[in-house]
Amino acid sequence: MAKSSFEYVKKFELDDTLLPNTWIVVRLDGKCFHKFADDHNFKKPNDLRALKLMNYAAFSVMRDFSDLLMGFGQSDEYSFVFKKDCNLYKRRAAKLLTTITSKFSTSYTYYWNKFLGDQQLLYPPSFDGRIVLYPNEDTLIDYMKWRQADVHINNLYNTTFWTLVQEGKLSPTQASFNCYVITLNKGHSFNFYILFQAEKRLCGTVSADKNEILFKEFNINYNNELEIFKRGTLLFRKNINIDESNKCSTVIVDVHDDMLKDSFWKDHKDLFTIKS
Amino acid sequence: MAKSSFEYVKKFELDDTLLPNTWIVVRLDGKCFHKFADDHNFKKPNDLRALKLMNYAAFSVMRDFSDLLMGFGQSDEYSFVFKKDCNLYKRRAAKLLTTITSKFSTSYTYYWNKFLGDQQLLYPPSFDGRIVLYPNEDTLIDYMKWRQADVHINNLYNTTFWTLVQEGKLSPTQASFNCYVITLNKGHSFNFYILFQAEKRLCGTVSADKNEILFKEFNINYNNELEIFKRGTLLFRKNINIDESNKCSTVIVDVHDDMLKDSFWKDHKDLFTIKS
Amino acid sequence: MAKSSFEYVKKFELDDTLLPNTWIVVRLDGKCFHKFADDHNFKKPNDLRALKLMNYAAFSVMRDFSDLLMGFGQSDEYSFVFKKDCNLYKRRAAKLLTTITSKFSTSYTYYWNKFLGDQQLLYPPSFDGRIVLYPNEDTLIDYMKWRQADVHINNLYNTTFWTLVQEGKLSPTQASFNCYVITLNKGHSFNFYILFQAEKRLCGTVSADKNEILFKEFNINYNNELEIFKRGTLLFRKNINIDESNKCSTVIVDVHDDMLKDSFWKDHKDLFTIKS
Amino acid sequence: MAKSSFEYVKKFELDDTLLPNTWIVVRLDGKCFHKFADDHNFKKPNDLRALKLMNYAAFSVMRDFSDLLMGFGQSDEYSFVFKKDCNLYKRRAAKLLTTITSKFSTSYTYYWNKFLGDQQLLYPPSFDGRIVLYPNEDTLIDYMKWRQADVHINNLYNTTFWTLVQEGKLSPTQASFNCYVITLNKGHSFNFYILFQAEKRLCGTVSADKNEILFKEFNINYNNELEIFKRGTLLFRKNINIDESNKCSTVIVDVHDDMLKDSFWKDHKDLFTIKS
Repeated sequence: MAKSSFEYVKKFELDDTLLPNTWIVVRLDGKCFHKFADDHNFKKPNDLRALKLMNYAAFSVMRDFSDLLMGFGQSDEYSFVFKKDCNLYKRRAAKLLTTITSKFSTSYTYYWNKFLGDQQLLYPPSFDGRIVLYPNEDTLIDYMKWRQADVHINNLYNTTFWTLVQEGKLSPTQASFNCYVITLNKGHSFNFYILFQAEKRLCGTVSADKNEILFKEFNINYNNELEIFKRGTLLFRKNINIDESNKCSTVIVDVHDDMLKDSFWKDHKDLFTIKS
Repeated sequence: MAKSSFEYVKKFELDDTLLPNTWIVVRLDGKCFHKFADDHNFKKPNDLRALKLMNYAAFSVMRDFSDLLMGFGQSDEYSFVFKKDCNLYKRRAAKLLTTITSKFSTSYTYYWNKFLGDQQLLYPPSFDGRIVLYPNEDTLIDYMKWRQADVHINNLYNTTFWTLVQEGKLSPTQASFNCYVITLNKGHSFNFYILFQAEKRLCGTVSADKNEILFKEFNINYNNELEIFKRGTLLFRKNINIDESNKCSTVIVDVHDDMLKDSFWKDHKDLFTIKS
Repeated sequence: MAKSSFEYVKKFELDDTLLPNTWIVVRLDGKCFHKFADDHNFKKPNDLRALKLMNYAAFSVMRDFSDLLMGFGQSDEYSFVFKKDCNLYKRRAAKLLTTITSKFSTSYTYYWNKFLGDQQLLYPPSFDGRIVLYPNEDTLIDYMKWRQADVHINNLYNTTFWTLVQEGKLSPTQASFNCYVITLNKGHSFNFYILFQAEKRLCGTVSADKNEILFKEFNINYNNELEIFKRGTLLFRKNINIDESNKCSTVIVDVHDDMLKDSFWKDHKDLFTIKS
Repeated sequence: MAKSSFEYVKKFELDDTLLPNTWIVVRLDGKCFHKFADDHNFKKPNDLRALKLMNYAAFSVMRDFSDLLMGFGQSDEYSFVFKKDCNLYKRRAAKLLTTITSKFSTSYTYYWNKFLGDQQLLYPPSFDGRIVLYPNEDTLIDYMKWRQADVHINNLYNTTFWTLVQEGKLSPTQASFNCYVITLNKGHSFNFYILFQAEKRLCGTVSADKNEILFKEFNINYNNELEIFKRGTLLFRKNINIDESNKCSTVIVDVHDDMLKDSFWKDHKDLFTIKS
């Protein structure tokens, strides 16, 4: 068989081993999830069912890869952190990146019905992924803070925006011209003029302004919003005593704590070292 | 908001742009598909339903990525070839690799029922992926030949092996000791002694030997096996006239031709250049 | 000895093998050579002695590395082209890049006196280097054309600029204010106002304009300038008969031909394949 | 001018930015320095003049690159360590690697006469270089220890080996057959049989054995060898008071201390942070 004469093409596969002794972060993002969310009638600004599905897919990844220390998710993205001495697949980047991406993607698809109930999955979704190294705890913690700061910024904006739109506070006269109504999908119709006014209203505002709009105009206290909306979800392993016999077991837990506070990282020092 | 103070961590994402003007190949492999195939009662040595599902998932990828010239699949692997001047995602490796991996993976999961019918999908499967560059047509063609040569080698071996095992030609006396029978899964049980004998029987044989075993002992002419089993599946785009009006349309077709022959590549010169 | 306990740090050296079957180009550039040229009284716009030293350093590199097909130099830069099936140092990028850079740099220093005569070398010069892959002859030829086009553009500009400055055609009245004279180095002094006027004069001109200035105002026919100034220097290997006995020997030759013409590459097809 | 039509080839230059916030180490090695040392009559096992030239070339590199924290040299190799927040050349690997390699190489050539006196430099030497990242102080310190442990291992071996050879303790009868004498270079001739016997004698010995051979047979106390031979040379910056006015100046100093002791690193914590 002419096998050997073609096998030289394997030499074109180049080594992509990652620098040892650094934290490997894989971050996934939903591809075209604005459209995907519309197509599947996700509630705005947050759909709790969809977030729970994201978390469950991430849990299913964490369970499979014991070298993963943490997962952090928000909206349509999820980050996974490998322990720094991880040697899975000899730290080959493509192998680590694609197995995480694939497992998360198929889990999201497979467990859809468990969380979205009546809402049928209309087509296979997809996620892109990237892989980034952080050389020390400080930069890794800042990475986690960066993603959580992002949740806050986006969620406060989205909550205020959709409240302005959905509560219809904008008077008829304000909407008297340029009023196009389109049907986004089954049963949802939005007034483009209102969308435009909401965007304009929020332009240049800071956090305090948005909190005030919510409170003064809609009697909504942003602090009372669900923690999962405001802070995203952190998954990590925890050793617990399972019974009186002092036996210990490792479970994966989810929390919605404030990771921007340095006290969080002091209280969770073992996040970086827990045996998996 | 403290956004800016954390955003520096983005700098740790390094550029992974691929060399321009080279063929980009993404190859996916099923992860632990020996076990997956057993768990889902795939027929041995080939399960036509499972191969059709692979092809359909690949078709769904080809349809989404118009820069893909070809796909070639066999068993639990699939290769995708981007045109050499592809500029999708500015040729960033991780982006190309993960979107292909994710879309293929979710399509495989999503379309499972369409092909596997009564056989329930028991858990989310996963695929790993790698990305390789080929600088010229010669090396790319040799890549395609390498994969197809692999189909032939594996399939002839597997066909002979499983015929030896399933047709039970090995006499009871041969199996008189060390005879452990285990249930692999619902309804399937194999005699480990027979598996071992089949492996031993094929050790050191060449193609001609295996053809002869099949023909003389089991009256099976290997040439009559399905082309999809012997050669895998090549997907590519083809421009066809859809009606008498001379209008042209591009469709994705699948063939099971012999790519080891140079005449194939002469006849399909447009594979490398077809407009998508 | 505690050797083994530290040797793990070798694992941090990552593989940097270059894609096989592609042309490897190493390009060197003088670091701070504007200042270096001033410090060493290089003639402007071109110093023939300095160019010959560059060529000799390049020749000394070509002689040492038999996998090099070509060298092309101009001003303070030199490009070296490895044959596409080069397997020197297993195609490790850093190894190829640094040995070329180092040998060129030390040769430039070592042979200084051979070409610069009385002009003493005042301090060790340095060069930076980069490594680039070209996947096919077309892109490689375009690379060579790009560098030669650059010679032409720069040299026509510099020749006109320095003629304007050195021939002092700018009248005293034009130079009547803001006339600072500084001594650049031993014996060279320039009038900054004249430098400024020359630059202003050339702003927005095209090739034809510059040719005309040279010819009409200074009676200089640019075509008569030395080929080495207008086209740079190409080094390559050539098989020649050394005597009547039909014995063949490989020598390194330098030419100053027009590589922008496609006929050049037709006439020199063996540049890409010559046995070294 | 056809400039623009060729300039696309610049796109083939790929980004090689190094991971931020990691220690960048560049290590240079003399190419074929066994031969180079013989050609230039270096004293064995150590030539103090040659080591001083290496150190001076390294000093000349340190002076030019203020982002370098340390240099460590032994034999024909030198390592340079950039501070971890170095942003020189935007951390582009090839740029950092080649400018260091080039400057060191030309300095070695340029300052040859300053240290080697009557011994003429016969041809341009060359050095190869590699670039490695260390993510934290621990791995960087282990890198430094690794190189210094290497000095010790090599120097003890070489000292014993050349003492055995040069002191001619091997009796004439031992050398009675196979006695080839060759002239390595001007004035140096070695008996190959003696070289062979010396190698055989040291095979399998540990440090203690070599110390004993030196002491018992040749009355040499290895501890009394020069520190520069036993430990190599560490260059680093130090802030000193230059006069009574309390003004501070930064100088580059060389030491030959024991870096294998952890106390060294405790005493020199500022090596990683000193302002340059």
